[in-house]
Amino acid sequence: MTYCLGIINRFGIVMAADSRTNAGVDYISAYKKLFDLSLPGERVIIICASGNLSVTQGVITRLNRDIQNQQETNLHTLPNMFDVARYIGEKGREIQSIDRSWLEKDRIDHSCNFLLGGQIKGEEPQLFLIYPQGNFIQATKETPFLQIGETKYGKPILDRTITYDTPLNDVAKCALLSIDSTMKSNISVGPPINIIMYETDSLVIRNTLQLRLGDPYLAKIRKLWEDSVRQAFESMPNIEWQYKLEDSTDDILID
Amino acid sequence: MTYCLGIINRFGIVMAADSRTNAGVDYISAYKKLFDLSLPGERVIIICASGNLSVTQGVITRLNRDIQNQQETNLHTLPNMFDVARYIGEKGREIQSIDRSWLEKDRIDHSCNFLLGGQIKGEEPQLFLIYPQGNFIQATKETPFLQIGETKYGKPILDRTITYDTPLNDVAKCALLSIDSTMKSNISVGPPINIIMYETDSLVIRNTLQLRLGDPYLAKIRKLWEDSVRQAFESMPNIEWQYKLEDSTDDILID
Repeated sequence: MTYCLGIINRFGIVMAADSRTNAGVDYISAYKKLFDLSLPGERVIIICASGNLSVTQGVITRLNRDIQNQQETNLHTLPNMFDVARYIGEKGREIQSIDRSWLEKDRIDHSCNFLLGGQIKGEEPQLFLIYPQGNFIQATKETPFLQIGETKYGKPILDRTITYDTPLNDVAKCALLSIDSTMKSNISVGPPINIIMYETDSLVIRNTLQLRLGDPYLAKIRKLWEDSVRQAFESMPNIEWQYKLEDSTDDILID
Repeated sequence: MTYCLGIINRFGIVMAADSRTNAGVDYISAYKKLFDLSLPGERVIIICASGNLSVTQGVITRLNRDIQNQQETNLHTLPNMFDVARYIGEKGREIQSIDRSWLEKDRIDHSCNFLLGGQIKGEEPQLFLIYPQGNFIQATKETPFLQIGETKYGKPILDRTITYDTPLNDVAKCALLSIDSTMKSNISVGPPINIIMYETDSLVIRNTLQLRLGDPYLAKIRKLWEDSVRQAFESMPNIEWQYKLEDSTDDILID
């Protein structure tokens, strides 16, 4: 499994991913899922990938190859982020059109999702989620984050804390905790964690971090977080219990 | 959807459930999913149900009817909790054997899960999860909670806080927050929240609570929790960013 998330707000973009890939539960390995395809000073393009590894690697390789071969259309020539999102979706469709029928024969999941975050000079920063079908949606102020892969365990912390006005360093800490929560609840999500923080209008990535298994910072924030959660419990008012409300054989239906 | 959880530890059992039932997204209603079928002073039997409502209501009705009709085998005569779990599983199988083929014809999900918590005089308190197939598992000291329904959003908070030694009032607060987190992330889980706290060896339920939409206590703990989470972020050490680790066109694979 995989867990990747992107968060965008007035201060910039944070993107993060775990690195665990599994074929069943008995073949676990580490693959990078967070890619920086920027042209520093001109455009920042960050991509996260989840899903069938052969498909996602195929897409990333094609994206890189088009840049290296100086194809007329590539990530560094497309005029805006919307077109970049569509172009990534098309790369996914290309691979699916070649491989899909072969994978389907053996009931192998061929789907893949991408997060695309970045900024092209002259535009606002933008964040997209590109679906296996090649279509895509964009994050807005109302819901400034997008997730792919094992999304549920890490969502409550985002729902409760992230707004369009959260300072970017707090956004990054929240992203780490969202991934850490997911790792704790699902062993198919695991380190190293890769995280990138991009500040609006800088047009270069200045902040990246890779946290490996046993990294002291990861251990420290996990401990601090768990201590804070426990303290929060203790400081919360006790439940004011009602006496028994209902007879055991009452109606099943309540209003 | 539904979210129910049961937690057992050295001090007792907490069981809680939301009350939202939906047929698609355009038919939402409230049904009770937490049932008290105890015989006070002799045995405490608490059941939570998720899944197809016609099946779960059918099971609860049959369980109640067997008690009322003083069947030789019923929840109040079975000698131990293990047999009670098996008996509930059998009731589910009975209904499935009647209805399943009709539901399958129209691809209607006929599955249902139950949580069973309680204590019979002379035994230790016990907590079970009964599967749609009628088989079951039991919570142990190592993992003192079981969940059914929409389980993922509410799991991280349990994973990080609940142990065999957590005071029962804190367990109850944690159960509420686990349900509240789930309600915030999935609108098909909703109030009223029903919660029961049972103290080991008391053989009666002394603490129950129903929290309806807009209940001031629920609003208060939600606000306190969100404030605590925000404070926890702020007190956490900032990320010590590394400089850019890798060139954009590096290998896809990392170690």
